[in-house]
Amino acid sequence: MALIVQKYGGTSVGSLDRIKAVAEKVAQACGSGQQLVVVVSAMAGETNRLFKLAEQLSEAPYPRETDVLVATGEQVSAALLAIRLHALGYPTVSFLAHQLKILTDARHGQARIKSVECPRILQALAEGNIVVVAGYQGINDNGDITTLGRGASDLTAVALAAVLKASVCEIYTDVDGVYTADPNICPKARRLDRVSYDEMLEMAGLGAKVLQLRSVELARRYRVPLVVRSSFYNGSEGTWVGEEDRTMEDVLVSGVTLDNNQSKITISGIEDRPGLAARIFGPIAGAGIVVDMIIQNASADGRADMTFTVARNDLRRALELIKTIADEIGAGGTRFEDQVAKVSIIGVGMRTHAGVAARMFQILAAEGINIEMIATSEIKISVVVNTKYGELAMRALHDAFLGQAGAEAV
Amino acid sequence: MALIVQKYGGTSVGSLDRIKAVAEKVAQACGSGQQLVVVVSAMAGETNRLFKLAEQLSEAPYPRETDVLVATGEQVSAALLAIRLHALGYPTVSFLAHQLKILTDARHGQARIKSVECPRILQALAEGNIVVVAGYQGINDNGDITTLGRGASDLTAVALAAVLKASVCEIYTDVDGVYTADPNICPKARRLDRVSYDEMLEMAGLGAKVLQLRSVELARRYRVPLVVRSSFYNGSEGTWVGEEDRTMEDVLVSGVTLDNNQSKITISGIEDRPGLAARIFGPIAGAGIVVDMIIQNASADGRADMTFTVARNDLRRALELIKTIADEIGAGGTRFEDQVAKVSIIGVGMRTHAGVAARMFQILAAEGINIEMIATSEIKISVVVNTKYGELAMRALHDAFLGQAGAEAV
Repeated sequence: MALIVQKYGGTSVGSLDRIKAVAEKVAQACGSGQQLVVVVSAMAGETNRLFKLAEQLSEAPYPRETDVLVATGEQVSAALLAIRLHALGYPTVSFLAHQLKILTDARHGQARIKSVECPRILQALAEGNIVVVAGYQGINDNGDITTLGRGASDLTAVALAAVLKASVCEIYTDVDGVYTADPNICPKARRLDRVSYDEMLEMAGLGAKVLQLRSVELARRYRVPLVVRSSFYNGSEGTWVGEEDRTMEDVLVSGVTLDNNQSKITISGIEDRPGLAARIFGPIAGAGIVVDMIIQNASADGRADMTFTVARNDLRRALELIKTIADEIGAGGTRFEDQVAKVSIIGVGMRTHAGVAARMFQILAAEGINIEMIATSEIKISVVVNTKYGELAMRALHDAFLGQAGAEAV
Repeated sequence: MALIVQKYGGTSVGSLDRIKAVAEKVAQACGSGQQLVVVVSAMAGETNRLFKLAEQLSEAPYPRETDVLVATGEQVSAALLAIRLHALGYPTVSFLAHQLKILTDARHGQARIKSVECPRILQALAEGNIVVVAGYQGINDNGDITTLGRGASDLTAVALAAVLKASVCEIYTDVDGVYTADPNICPKARRLDRVSYDEMLEMAGLGAKVLQLRSVELARRYRVPLVVRSSFYNGSEGTWVGEEDRTMEDVLVSGVTLDNNQSKITISGIEDRPGLAARIFGPIAGAGIVVDMIIQNASADGRADMTFTVARNDLRRALELIKTIADEIGAGGTRFEDQVAKVSIIGVGMRTHAGVAARMFQILAAEGINIEMIATSEIKISVVVNTKYGELAMRALHDAFLGQAGAEAV
């Protein structure tokens, strides 16, 4: 009998009517002879409501206790779905993290899963139950409640699918799959039928919000087939996320992403000698600031410019650190730009096709868009442009590479 | 260092402002050098809100899952209080039932505590923490969440006080103690400084809502001194509930209670032979209906009348059963009255004083109130009267026995 893991996000269980609808979907899958493990998020808005309560009692709510608080959101959803499934006549058992020993490290609010025990799930399934699991939560070595970070019910689902060797992990959400671009910006964006783990990782990391980044990493590591679907309507197969196969290479570009919240810092006139990059980026990393793109271009006089991007939220803190460092290493000066956007095209086809970058630059030039930075990986090309050109760049690239369904298929 | 257990009820933690006020109270007690274990209920209204969600999804919400749902109420309160205490600078650790192994039987919704483990509490206290515990919840042998019944956070507090050998268990609520009668009905009702476990048990069982019945039983069994106080204002010592001592015997009557939700059933013309009472009350008990007072008076012709009271909610079901039974045993007939009230006077002094019953009947007769049934125990006399006389009877008895502070003290 096939075992599948389903995960329903916050909007999918956002009201009692939605929970009834989810129960119908689960019952339907159960009726077709599958063993079911269902992971649920908190009802939409509930996690924010709980965080706000904590913030009204403390400027910096104590992390261990905040986790005890917010973990109730998923507990309520799990219990309500189980109650509804019982009412429909389906034996169901809900489990919380401490019952499944979803063991994590001790980093409250952003814990990482270390191990999961599945005997209780297997026993409950063998006894003919549907199993409902509260997502987003774990326990540390002390048995204290931890949470895995926002959006991490995906992670719970993928971890369970990996441990249980489920045939598929179905992620139900409020969109019907992964799109070639954000449809709010690119009206011609269309749903992808299939996408590789690597492409999905780049898309998740570059701001596509359909799947949580860490859950895609975990799915890739354990070869868990994912499918992203809408819980709001049937009739779409959604998007499969899985191993790369040869047909995928026929598609040059699978998606275009835009990150509008970037800023750029340049340190100029750096003496070009070993160890300086570490000297610059050590303190930045130490302050918990994520540096995205880094470009260094050496000039003829032995001095170099170093340019890098950070999220706009981190700009002020990064600048303070950089000014001190620039003085210490005797750099010529620092400058920044806080209105930049990163536009990327992603596709495993790039591995085998040449000339994609050149074509990308031509498309942007034709729109009169100046490229400020370029970074490439095997399956991705990113450019930094002024924020005001971000959406235009995205649309131009999308329509050229992906404008017509199947346009890039050979 | 003295260890005390405090319990705050739903109205005491009913809002964020109330939680702030409770945190101040706890901090104050901590500042005076005591080790503190604080048990909290769900915020007022929260448990009802959760039950209502379940009822909208199922006519008969599955008990195991309902417990998973409603246990979140206390979890939220415990986390919020701990967050606030941290914000005030007091190291605090919250615990849920599964962390303390508050082991119960498997009767979801009305589980009974079997054992509690306290190493985690003792360790947290030794490390200088305030300990906050979510009341009302336990786990069964499977590690599944159970709940202990409405109002049972009192029970959690008393159980912890017993296991930890606390010097006192302080029950904070929205009234400032145990009263001689319901002040809404008896304007002259006054707070008792001291009351014995036995008296408190009779009062709790007879409808005084200040303390949950089972928590008083547990306190008596383990000799846990209780004190009932208001969390809303200081300046009152509250009511101590403890062992009976000689001074208590000087007080003839400690309290007057009224239960207005009674009904009365009579089976007449029963052949007076052994086994008939069991024949009658077996099926009633089997249906989960609690019978309170039972009176049988044999008549000269070998036939008897049997009269008993049940809660008005249970009357219809009880009557259906009784009519069948009456036919089967060849009784003369059945009749009922659904508007009766039970008025009781309670006091350990009755053990050593004669004539209390006679005086009670005189007081009621002087008011023209007809007594329909009488039942007595060592420290209690109850009478059943027509509901319309219930409050009048209560006031008359209260004012005669307890009208002036210390009136009955010798």
